[in-house]
Amino acid sequence: MKSNASLKELAGFLKAAETILIFTHTNPDGDALGSAAALCRVLRKMGKTSWILMDEEVPEYISFMDTEFVTRDKDCLKDHDVSICVDCGEYGRFPALADKFDEGKLHLCVDHHATGDGFGDHYYIDPSEAATCQLIYKLIKELEAAVAEGSDAATGLIDKTVAESLYTGINTDTGSFQYSNTTADTHAIAADLMAHGIDHTAINVKLYQTIPMTKLKIQASILQRAEFLFGGKVAVGYVTGQMLEEAGAVLDDAEGTIDMLRNIEGVEIAAFLKEKGEAVKVSMRAKSYANVAEIVSVFGGGGHVKAAGCTLEMGMDEALDAIKKAIGEHF
Amino acid sequence: MKSNASLKELAGFLKAAETILIFTHTNPDGDALGSAAALCRVLRKMGKTSWILMDEEVPEYISFMDTEFVTRDKDCLKDHDVSICVDCGEYGRFPALADKFDEGKLHLCVDHHATGDGFGDHYYIDPSEAATCQLIYKLIKELEAAVAEGSDAATGLIDKTVAESLYTGINTDTGSFQYSNTTADTHAIAADLMAHGIDHTAINVKLYQTIPMTKLKIQASILQRAEFLFGGKVAVGYVTGQMLEEAGAVLDDAEGTIDMLRNIEGVEIAAFLKEKGEAVKVSMRAKSYANVAEIVSVFGGGGHVKAAGCTLEMGMDEALDAIKKAIGEHF
Repeated sequence: MKSNASLKELAGFLKAAETILIFTHTNPDGDALGSAAALCRVLRKMGKTSWILMDEEVPEYISFMDTEFVTRDKDCLKDHDVSICVDCGEYGRFPALADKFDEGKLHLCVDHHATGDGFGDHYYIDPSEAATCQLIYKLIKELEAAVAEGSDAATGLIDKTVAESLYTGINTDTGSFQYSNTTADTHAIAADLMAHGIDHTAINVKLYQTIPMTKLKIQASILQRAEFLFGGKVAVGYVTGQMLEEAGAVLDDAEGTIDMLRNIEGVEIAAFLKEKGEAVKVSMRAKSYANVAEIVSVFGGGGHVKAAGCTLEMGMDEALDAIKKAIGEHF
Repeated sequence: MKSNASLKELAGFLKAAETILIFTHTNPDGDALGSAAALCRVLRKMGKTSWILMDEEVPEYISFMDTEFVTRDKDCLKDHDVSICVDCGEYGRFPALADKFDEGKLHLCVDHHATGDGFGDHYYIDPSEAATCQLIYKLIKELEAAVAEGSDAATGLIDKTVAESLYTGINTDTGSFQYSNTTADTHAIAADLMAHGIDHTAINVKLYQTIPMTKLKIQASILQRAEFLFGGKVAVGYVTGQMLEEAGAVLDDAEGTIDMLRNIEGVEIAAFLKEKGEAVKVSMRAKSYANVAEIVSVFGGGGHVKAAGCTLEMGMDEALDAIKKAIGEHF
């Protein structure tokens, strides 16, 4: 937990502002977009002028989410009162927009990643929270209290759309409430969001029941070539441009393959290597006890104990050998 | 909702009894075993003599659950005070034990399946509940109230083991909180169960991250042979004994294949046919709007709108033709 301001104080800064620009990390996921979308819609309900600034398209798999206030227009606001970044806490996570972030008069940050030593003028970073959307939910509760202050009227800022954004972020960052980061609090928040009449079935169909055929084909091809080492405790898979071509697939279709490998009975460590230009991107997952952050640190990589990655500047064959050797030394 | 007794009244009958025999349906799933295990452990904490009577082994994939009080010994209790069946409400779901159920002096039923017109002397059947484990959770709350009556002491009957049984049942019957049957109540109960310190990570690893390699192999084989009809809206897959043999798999490995087919982008109806002796067992799923119960009713099958099944007394080729024709007529 790194914070120099409470969520109540952050709510106070937002309440006092008129123009607010929201930032999140590049290649946004459900939690990043959900956090930004929920916060932006709530701020607009409070009468603020607010936008979510991105420098890329919203990825296809989360494009069903609330993107009404996402813009790529850097001039949407000028000399705005507040810049706030959600689900990220360092310039490196949104380098192309760092200057615009700085342009705000006040810089806020709400995040759940345990990186850096704090960011902006006022920050609230809590890695014990499963998703930044949980923090945004709590921030909105503080905004409701701030708006209600001195008034008798109960102020509900969470509507169905806001609730769906928050639910989607929490759902994706907890792997459908399965990951170890899920807490009693996670389910309690989900219960409250469900009570807002969200269409959770439609969201889950989009997230988990809309698998492209090309994804299944490339996964079958990867599985066929995967190696199982150390009595099946280690699974090493890879994908090359040629394999993608043969399956009529794109690299995005290989997303999630690392989970497929880890989910195999007996597998403790799964490694997945993707050919990307002249380099190889490596993802690694542990199921129960291994520390994959330690393994990839040898190659200058990083991440969490159970989910980490690195990039190797070499060909696939050489990279496969290096990874297998590093895992072997860990055992 | 079919009931001739409230959960409070059922709790009263259980409190008054000394010896209680618990039944559930054959081929028990997580919700069936979870309901029985949680109830049995709670009754024992109340000082009762109680067993769960089955006439088969607990299936491997849920054998990690609390099975301490499961027995196959029909003589474990004689002329017992209460027979209670959970997650089922008809003799046909546990035919080999029907006589033993009748032997009890009082017959109770707690279920969430919308079949039949009630069962036993006193029953509480609520199809709006996502899982029978949700009903058992509420029944236990009534038992706690009944035990506490006339006493100042708060009575907690739910311990970590009981909470893990209930959580597993709710998790499996809601497909990890994804299915449309999931409600705000489901998450609120999950939040309370999590607060009992359950090892939800271990449970989710057992449920979703322990996939046998043979399962992946037979799924690949099924996918390779699957037919996609009506512009990809319908997926029809099948498995034969020969396919299983080639993959080194058993029929249990094909469990869940129907979900894989339904989860493909664009698929609205998935059908999966299994060769079983001289007959073919058909499972059918709808994703969003189709009514598969209606389709299988042509063959004397039944089930829910989005999940139904039937058995065809014919060979695989003939069965495939019949199913494709019936689906075509539905569209």
